[in-house]
Amino acid sequence: MVRLAKLVIDSSQLENYTAALKEEIEASVRLEPGVLTLYAVAEKDNPTYVTILEIYADTNAYKAHLQTPHFIKYKAGTKEMVKSLELVETIPLIPGMKIK
Amino acid sequence: MVRLAKLVIDSSQLENYTAALKEEIEASVRLEPGVLTLYAVAEKDNPTYVTILEIYADTNAYKAHLQTPHFIKYKAGTKEMVKSLELVETIPLIPGMKIK
Repeated sequence: MVRLAKLVIDSSQLENYTAALKEEIEASVRLEPGVLTLYAVAEKDNPTYVTILEIYADTNAYKAHLQTPHFIKYKAGTKEMVKSLELVETIPLIPGMKIK
Repeated sequence: MVRLAKLVIDSSQLENYTAALKEEIEASVRLEPGVLTLYAVAEKDNPTYVTILEIYADTNAYKAHLQTPHFIKYKAGTKEMVKSLELVETIPLIPGMKIK
């Protein structure tokens, strides 16, 4: 299961948001074998535009992720910081592609 | 150096484009140590919308990539298939993040 999350963050909250996202990603990747990556980037010219490449082993891994304390904490804590969120389901061109 | 390439492909050429991109990515990742990943996805609901997370070791690795026969072949061969291409420079939230 591969997805792009496209977010726009409230510029006055960007630093707080970034810290919360980093904490959530580090916990997810460390604690959840089924979270294969959460690769987050901010656009250089528009740092409030954040894109996350989300790769889960399968939909069960994703559903379990939604129930974790670290995800629930992130979601509640950043609710007011996120101006928009678009979740785009995708198909990877080369499943199994890694990062060296 | 981390970038998002956002492409829109001519729908009548999507199969040809996908084959050419796959060939180019497989050659790049296999032959170029400085190409750390080219993770390409197509949107499920809009398969002509392609996004590639491009990670290069540094700008020299990227410049060398542009000179490779496989990249030159891909670029020339797909020129008429690509309706639009946007290259977005980004900053990774967690440099060194991998895919399990």
